[in-house]
Amino acid sequence: LTSPEFALIARHFTRVTRHTRLGVGDDAALLDAPHAGHALAVSTDLLVEGTHFLRGTDPHRLGHKVLAVNLSDLAAMGARPRWAFLAMALPEADDVWLAAFADGFHALAAEHGVDLAGGDTTRGPRGFCVTVIGEIDPLRALRRDGARPGDDVWVSGCTGEAAAGLAVLQGRCASMAPSDAARCIERLERPQPRVALGLALAGLATAAIDVSDGLLADAAHLGERSGALLSIDLVRMPQPSTLAALDPGARRDAVLSGGDDYELVFCAPRASRDAIVAAAAAAAPDCSVVTRIGRVEAADAVSRVGGARLLDRDGREIAIARAGFDHFAAAAA
Amino acid sequence: LTSPEFALIARHFTRVTRHTRLGVGDDAALLDAPHAGHALAVSTDLLVEGTHFLRGTDPHRLGHKVLAVNLSDLAAMGARPRWAFLAMALPEADDVWLAAFADGFHALAAEHGVDLAGGDTTRGPRGFCVTVIGEIDPLRALRRDGARPGDDVWVSGCTGEAAAGLAVLQGRCASMAPSDAARCIERLERPQPRVALGLALAGLATAAIDVSDGLLADAAHLGERSGALLSIDLVRMPQPSTLAALDPGARRDAVLSGGDDYELVFCAPRASRDAIVAAAAAAAPDCSVVTRIGRVEAADAVSRVGGARLLDRDGREIAIARAGFDHFAAAAA
Repeated sequence: LTSPEFALIARHFTRVTRHTRLGVGDDAALLDAPHAGHALAVSTDLLVEGTHFLRGTDPHRLGHKVLAVNLSDLAAMGARPRWAFLAMALPEADDVWLAAFADGFHALAAEHGVDLAGGDTTRGPRGFCVTVIGEIDPLRALRRDGARPGDDVWVSGCTGEAAAGLAVLQGRCASMAPSDAARCIERLERPQPRVALGLALAGLATAAIDVSDGLLADAAHLGERSGALLSIDLVRMPQPSTLAALDPGARRDAVLSGGDDYELVFCAPRASRDAIVAAAAAAAPDCSVVTRIGRVEAADAVSRVGGARLLDRDGREIAIARAGFDHFAAAAA
Repeated sequence: LTSPEFALIARHFTRVTRHTRLGVGDDAALLDAPHAGHALAVSTDLLVEGTHFLRGTDPHRLGHKVLAVNLSDLAAMGARPRWAFLAMALPEADDVWLAAFADGFHALAAEHGVDLAGGDTTRGPRGFCVTVIGEIDPLRALRRDGARPGDDVWVSGCTGEAAAGLAVLQGRCASMAPSDAARCIERLERPQPRVALGLALAGLATAAIDVSDGLLADAAHLGERSGALLSIDLVRMPQPSTLAALDPGARRDAVLSGGDDYELVFCAPRASRDAIVAAAAAAAPDCSVVTRIGRVEAADAVSRVGGARLLDRDGREIAIARAGFDHFAAAAA
């Protein structure tokens, strides 16, 4: 990358900001403080080629995804996203590629009212670090540690399609109809962060996490942080129709352990069931389906550390060989 | 990296926080809003092995440096650093290496009252993305665009030692005494962000930038943003005694165009000369030396876009072949 190439890159990523005092181009961005009584929610994610996305991924979709996974973290907190910062390592400056990547990034940012307020660019193996900052009433935040025994466990939308999409791209899944395969690849490459749902659940759900590692693995993270046990009923799990052609074992693996879906798993008191359904409906079209998939139990009854377990239709625990996609054991490439 | 390795890494980077509502371990960190009337200053930097640091760099120094370069951005804004976020790509999890890296990072963070509030870890080519958030009175911020014709141009400390340190490490500089070489390598690998100086200059200097690309290159950035021309007098430039053994051409190159010094170049009205010196003294030991190296002129008198130029002792412009280290033309490895 040369100086003119840097100038080129800067042009693609300098857009009008709507609520930023000082954006791209100085030593630091200046952001006005949040509304009175509100706190900041901040999340950062690093996405590296070969681990988080395949070489050759469509740049428009990649620009979308690097922001989407961060917005999903804010959604899982119940925060309203406001600003994003984009640091990029690029092996070369390809104008067509950069224009498409920037379009994908900016389109999702605009959809959620997010200003790109700063960033950094350097030469290196392709990778992206996005930091997002949102506003939140801290007393209504959807932390991971708030689940209480007796709460219901819910999931938004459905899980498993992103993992199936990866299997299709890697040639491990030839049986799927083209339209189903396209839908699964879209779920993998253009995840839709459940921002409106997270905002609707703030102050209503007791705890939440987004599904990036796999439903059971992320439910276990939530259970550990809450010191409680999340019992998931296999028969209650939403079954995506797109996965009907998979053999039952592969389908179950995808639904329970497939990563990259960016749905929300959350807990709420039984008394809030109607309110949860109403919140999901209010969040449409961001997400209009939520499913009750289990309940929170006291950790000390079964294990001392909290976590998650899977139950069959008779309430018996099902042993899980692989509790969730490990990004490292099962890298994307 | 495996799940146990992730747990190991998390342990190294989870420390007590002092002013963070919710830190490492949830979907997002929760930070309390800044003091009334204050804004947030945010900067993000990506450092990649081979471009920003040499393979084999001492991990304690590297942990220091990845935070230092970001704190330097806040210093150049006149902001008080408060929180840091650290995203890491690592080829493997080496416990000894990580412990040293974490120690270097945390030591500098503690020195500046910065909480490590979140981050991310993934497998990949070694690289680090740090995002820092500080507090600032926006009306006193040291933006790049505030320089006015008639202002003086100042630099903190001295420049050139970091570039000489890199030359030593690359075997391009055999003439230096060992103690001088060690000092220069220290400047390269353990830069000291001028945080206290930046805070002391807030509301006093009209514009500032930190020297990462080279003094003339960064002065030119400031001039461009201000629509003014910074004229630098060669004879006024501080000459580090450590560089005395270099031939005059190499010394001049290092002082004027060497990167990675992380000193501050700033502008201030002539009437503030005593106040600037007093501010620098108040910022000791962070930085007690500031030198007046030139003046700000109207851009339209010489060029239409603003920038920087170098003058000899008779006020004649000196042509510069290489106006500053281009991180890409002159990568560290």
